[in-house]
Amino acid sequence: MSAATSLPIAHDTAAHRSAFTAKPPRTGMQHPTSPIPVGVLGATGTVGQRFITLLAAHPWFVIHALGASPRSAGKPYRAAVNWKQVTPIPSAVRDVVVRECTPAAFRECKIVFSGLDADVAGEIEEAFRAADLAVFSNAKNFRRDPHVPLIVPLVNTSHLSIIPQQQALFSPPLSKGFIVTNANCSTTGYVIPLHALEKAFGPIEAVIVTTMQAISGAGYPGVSSLDILDNVIPYISGEEEKIEWETLKILGGITENDQGVKTFDMHAKQPLRVSAACNRVPVIDGHTECVSVRFAKRPPPSPQQVREALAAFTPAAQTLGCPSAPRHAIVVHEEPDRPQPRLDRYYQDGAGVSVGRVRQCQVMDIKFVVLANNVSIGAATSSIINAEVAVLKNVVQY
Amino acid sequence: MSAATSLPIAHDTAAHRSAFTAKPPRTGMQHPTSPIPVGVLGATGTVGQRFITLLAAHPWFVIHALGASPRSAGKPYRAAVNWKQVTPIPSAVRDVVVRECTPAAFRECKIVFSGLDADVAGEIEEAFRAADLAVFSNAKNFRRDPHVPLIVPLVNTSHLSIIPQQQALFSPPLSKGFIVTNANCSTTGYVIPLHALEKAFGPIEAVIVTTMQAISGAGYPGVSSLDILDNVIPYISGEEEKIEWETLKILGGITENDQGVKTFDMHAKQPLRVSAACNRVPVIDGHTECVSVRFAKRPPPSPQQVREALAAFTPAAQTLGCPSAPRHAIVVHEEPDRPQPRLDRYYQDGAGVSVGRVRQCQVMDIKFVVLANNVSIGAATSSIINAEVAVLKNVVQY
Amino acid sequence: MSAATSLPIAHDTAAHRSAFTAKPPRTGMQHPTSPIPVGVLGATGTVGQRFITLLAAHPWFVIHALGASPRSAGKPYRAAVNWKQVTPIPSAVRDVVVRECTPAAFRECKIVFSGLDADVAGEIEEAFRAADLAVFSNAKNFRRDPHVPLIVPLVNTSHLSIIPQQQALFSPPLSKGFIVTNANCSTTGYVIPLHALEKAFGPIEAVIVTTMQAISGAGYPGVSSLDILDNVIPYISGEEEKIEWETLKILGGITENDQGVKTFDMHAKQPLRVSAACNRVPVIDGHTECVSVRFAKRPPPSPQQVREALAAFTPAAQTLGCPSAPRHAIVVHEEPDRPQPRLDRYYQDGAGVSVGRVRQCQVMDIKFVVLANNVSIGAATSSIINAEVAVLKNVVQY
Amino acid sequence: MSAATSLPIAHDTAAHRSAFTAKPPRTGMQHPTSPIPVGVLGATGTVGQRFITLLAAHPWFVIHALGASPRSAGKPYRAAVNWKQVTPIPSAVRDVVVRECTPAAFRECKIVFSGLDADVAGEIEEAFRAADLAVFSNAKNFRRDPHVPLIVPLVNTSHLSIIPQQQALFSPPLSKGFIVTNANCSTTGYVIPLHALEKAFGPIEAVIVTTMQAISGAGYPGVSSLDILDNVIPYISGEEEKIEWETLKILGGITENDQGVKTFDMHAKQPLRVSAACNRVPVIDGHTECVSVRFAKRPPPSPQQVREALAAFTPAAQTLGCPSAPRHAIVVHEEPDRPQPRLDRYYQDGAGVSVGRVRQCQVMDIKFVVLANNVSIGAATSSIINAEVAVLKNVVQY
Repeated sequence: MSAATSLPIAHDTAAHRSAFTAKPPRTGMQHPTSPIPVGVLGATGTVGQRFITLLAAHPWFVIHALGASPRSAGKPYRAAVNWKQVTPIPSAVRDVVVRECTPAAFRECKIVFSGLDADVAGEIEEAFRAADLAVFSNAKNFRRDPHVPLIVPLVNTSHLSIIPQQQALFSPPLSKGFIVTNANCSTTGYVIPLHALEKAFGPIEAVIVTTMQAISGAGYPGVSSLDILDNVIPYISGEEEKIEWETLKILGGITENDQGVKTFDMHAKQPLRVSAACNRVPVIDGHTECVSVRFAKRPPPSPQQVREALAAFTPAAQTLGCPSAPRHAIVVHEEPDRPQPRLDRYYQDGAGVSVGRVRQCQVMDIKFVVLANNVSIGAATSSIINAEVAVLKNVVQY
Repeated sequence: MSAATSLPIAHDTAAHRSAFTAKPPRTGMQHPTSPIPVGVLGATGTVGQRFITLLAAHPWFVIHALGASPRSAGKPYRAAVNWKQVTPIPSAVRDVVVRECTPAAFRECKIVFSGLDADVAGEIEEAFRAADLAVFSNAKNFRRDPHVPLIVPLVNTSHLSIIPQQQALFSPPLSKGFIVTNANCSTTGYVIPLHALEKAFGPIEAVIVTTMQAISGAGYPGVSSLDILDNVIPYISGEEEKIEWETLKILGGITENDQGVKTFDMHAKQPLRVSAACNRVPVIDGHTECVSVRFAKRPPPSPQQVREALAAFTPAAQTLGCPSAPRHAIVVHEEPDRPQPRLDRYYQDGAGVSVGRVRQCQVMDIKFVVLANNVSIGAATSSIINAEVAVLKNVVQY
Repeated sequence: MSAATSLPIAHDTAAHRSAFTAKPPRTGMQHPTSPIPVGVLGATGTVGQRFITLLAAHPWFVIHALGASPRSAGKPYRAAVNWKQVTPIPSAVRDVVVRECTPAAFRECKIVFSGLDADVAGEIEEAFRAADLAVFSNAKNFRRDPHVPLIVPLVNTSHLSIIPQQQALFSPPLSKGFIVTNANCSTTGYVIPLHALEKAFGPIEAVIVTTMQAISGAGYPGVSSLDILDNVIPYISGEEEKIEWETLKILGGITENDQGVKTFDMHAKQPLRVSAACNRVPVIDGHTECVSVRFAKRPPPSPQQVREALAAFTPAAQTLGCPSAPRHAIVVHEEPDRPQPRLDRYYQDGAGVSVGRVRQCQVMDIKFVVLANNVSIGAATSSIINAEVAVLKNVVQY
Repeated sequence: MSAATSLPIAHDTAAHRSAFTAKPPRTGMQHPTSPIPVGVLGATGTVGQRFITLLAAHPWFVIHALGASPRSAGKPYRAAVNWKQVTPIPSAVRDVVVRECTPAAFRECKIVFSGLDADVAGEIEEAFRAADLAVFSNAKNFRRDPHVPLIVPLVNTSHLSIIPQQQALFSPPLSKGFIVTNANCSTTGYVIPLHALEKAFGPIEAVIVTTMQAISGAGYPGVSSLDILDNVIPYISGEEEKIEWETLKILGGITENDQGVKTFDMHAKQPLRVSAACNRVPVIDGHTECVSVRFAKRPPPSPQQVREALAAFTPAAQTLGCPSAPRHAIVVHEEPDRPQPRLDRYYQDGAGVSVGRVRQCQVMDIKFVVLANNVSIGAATSSIINAEVAVLKNVVQY
């Protein structure tokens, strides 16, 4: 069976992905001319499975090594994994022998994607970086590190500028190794429209967000069916704190003192208050979020101005010509009852976000609903676009 | 089969209900000593089925007449209804012949409960009132009428004081007839803790509420399964407007001008801004609501003070000894992941509400989660407690 | 809060249970006159929670000891358990200190109910029996033991007659100790109508059963929500073998050889072929089973005769006056679309079964649908009725 | 947005479809060299939406006319439809003005696909045929007509040979017009493996099938969420009769008497008894069916022989090179817990079927599980492949 046939849902085929490349790269921006070998850590987990599905059809990256726990190491991938995707295991990796997550086993990888669980990600990613490997991680462990950028690829790829400072902490300084993290899935979805709004209308000073999150956000086996069928769980451990903190780092800038030391400013120029209420709902994929925002600017923009600004938003990852970037970052729905996770989570192969119900808020200024695919832009897709940007900006040495 | 046995779930048995009567009625407050005949309009609908289930086991009220559409009139109830409750049709009504919804057919009823759909409720309820019948309606038609009280029975039964003014509009004035409405299901749940908080800490000046509403709120057949399985619908037609408006009427007071004319003040002394975002989720019964409030009082109460005030709240309906009132109006959960609809919707037979996750809000003052059973306190139970209060206050002539 | 109030769903109240006692016990059948102390093993698990909910309201039995893993032992029950029932923890056990599952800790219990997991049930139950304790187990470990009866309480309580032989295997023979098991949840539901049919029409020679089983049958956390939302899993490990084997033991008789040695005959007089196909579906409680049967008798009974025989069926447990036995064992639905798990699983507090769609089978003789509540008659309720029968037959010494 | 981008799920793209064409067409079998204009009746319904999604990317067919009820006629398609697919409305039809379902409005269509509801399909399809139009219908109205073939495209395309006899009934005989129907969705899935087994092992004499059918089989709004969440409905009106009857017509042959009159033999050479039990389950797409079969041949094939025969099965539609035919008709799963609707319904874009759990049946010979995508091979995809075969066999004049 050819790769194309093995993917009845084309989320992931190169043919489709390439369709999203809105424009040819700008002059001077070199696309890679030969395949870049990459590795996947935590390859048997749910995020790892998504990495593999996406990378198997990637125009630049070729899977070179798969890492998992010692229990899986040594087995062919198909035997080590409990595959849970709706597309078959890509034929290119079915028989790949899984390795242990040691830097030596991945030393030929120019990029290493990490879908590791937080309980092991810290130590392993640290070791990989120390071995001068470039790590793009979906794990939470280094998100709060003052030298590690926390990047939502449609928002703040400019934060890659902290990398040299991160490398300089080592002695001798690293030349290729670093860690880049992407954000929590529920943070990712809603900061994209928030960033678009700040670009158009200046700083936001307060946000209240209530999430209705899909079960896939909890991994596998994750949420027990007895807890979620015919139910809502109005609590996800640590989630509200992540949203409230990560939003500041992502939407904030980087300041530089007289000695040239860079610091994430946490949105300090206009202090931003964020209040999150997180809920788990019986939805498989796709986080729906109800957002109310208050702008610093008086009078605030009208709902129509907000709609137009969101629809017009073009992230740098798109301008650069990243192959996995969505062609349209934000679709703005006019129908009153959209976005809905089941109907809208596949928008732009899950790399874009859907916004709807933009209207006035009686308490803040504007309220709207945002839907983001937590297993795509909310996880593996983010890491991959981050890596693509890093390649185009020559942050990754290949 | 005895009535007791026919109800494997005792939501509804007199034995259980009576257990909720916290105290004997206060001196001077007379409980009825003989059964009060009541009627149910819209008896074959989902709200009507709930009225019947509750009334069949009521200690005071006895079902005397059932009304439905001309299509159902003339049939025995069991043949007219598409029964959808988890308990069987109460034996007392199985063979009752359904009547048309005309005042003549209900003239012996001291109280008429209306579970009619909005498209017919207006005209029929108006006719019943004009025929000097006391109507307790779950329909929305008269909620905004300046002479009709909109009563959540654990909040503002004091609004019954408008009834004489409503009756005086007729010529000759009505002596027994009137209309009392209860609130929309999603409004009902969250105004109970809001009222408790205003009693304890003074006026609230702003509320943002995001709801996750059960499918039963839409009636039968209501929401198509294709629209809600593995999905969230971030929109319920008219619902946000209802919450935003009804909250003001319910939490507001009644002012009286020099001529003794009473007016609902819509919370005018301290203008209250309410912003609602309503969502439908795949839950059968029980509306979950995430609420953020800002108090007028500075500094605002602490989360612990809020918890204590909610737990201590005792509504008038309970003090009066209403048999259907919950023994505890609000349970405050300490577990981080409660309330949940599937586990908590049966609290106090669905007549109480569950609050949890009381914590500070980074943007407003306090945020919390409230769960209310939309088919109980959110619908038929409210009408019935309203009627009980009206009986005890001699507003109903029997 | 009184026990009555703490149970908004009356599955479990003594008041309701007693209503199911169809008749006063037959002359000579003595009901206990003082409370019988009982213990629960595996008290923190899902089956254990059901045992506790039912026993807390039992007219004869009083909970004396709760046993769980060493990790839980020493803690008050409320702290040891992750309570998942829709009714609160019964007040009588909230503060009971959990014990280890050793016979010494339960020596005052006249009956010990076991909700242990299979991986530990074998050894522990064996030790309890050896210590002369009477064990009623929901675990599978001893179901195939040739001296242990496998009893569905509405079917084959006559199999208790093997107990003396079981006790005689010990030296010295046990005087009080024994093990009685109840059947797998999916076996239990459908053997009840099969037994009723064999009583009325003689032996069945073949059965094909396809099950649609609730997630609660897998315990907690059990089935991952990612595996079952919007899905069917057409496989439950070991389940088909259990149904195919257990049916023979339960519906078969006991033969006695010349030396008085009793043997379960596995339906040998008329060999019975059973074919099961088991599926997990997104239903919380209640196993639905589609059954086709072929009778030995020619011509076979008509659908109407089958309906009448099922409706008329009265099990011995009911005749004896067991307080937890259903008043009607089998309800036969005439509506074309019943039984349904959500509407019918509470029938007779889950102690009865619902049958519908009795019609001719083009391949076998008769086909029908049966619904049984897997967490009630399919689990804890079975053990408890078995114990009640054993008390009334003086098999339990108290 | 290009067509490719508008389809984030490639169920439907020509690129993917063509990948399924296993082989080039046999010599002499001419593929069309210019686009064939086609029409869709019932274009706004759920089946109509599927037709449009598939046809918009079809390599041969081009949508020329869309028909719907008079209420929709005259509106642009996007305004007339309540679009419920996960892919956007194909750009080619967004602004197409919907027509009334009259033959005149479709006279330029070489093929008309009908997704009409049964209550109007009879009259309209009859009129279209009388106007010499070729109709491929998903409706049930003509399935039992003795001159209309009932074709599952992976099974009995040979039944197209009845068409001349159907045309000859008219005076003058039709030259281009006819009606071809495809089968009920639940019949379609399981007759494919049955046919493969009969091809390999000779006639089957009995089948018992229990279905677990997706809600999409009932159309929109179809099943109320209140009826199916946390539930199974063990009944679908008319469904069992359809399976039991249609199976005979599809698996049977065509006999010809001395006068050359052809008759569907309803599997008369080896009478086939079929018993179906149909259930609705909370699954969005994909019917799962548990099947037990008894072969005429003694001894029957072993499970392993059955697996091999199923995997090797190649339908004529595939050999002919139909672009929408699956490249593999049947995938046989070795994993114990497959097929599952959520994971396997996209196999071969929903045009193939998945079989698993092939094992011995204690009562019949062999039992297995089959999964078929009811909205693809179970509906519109069937009609389209039928039309492709008719084109290749020159039954359609174009």
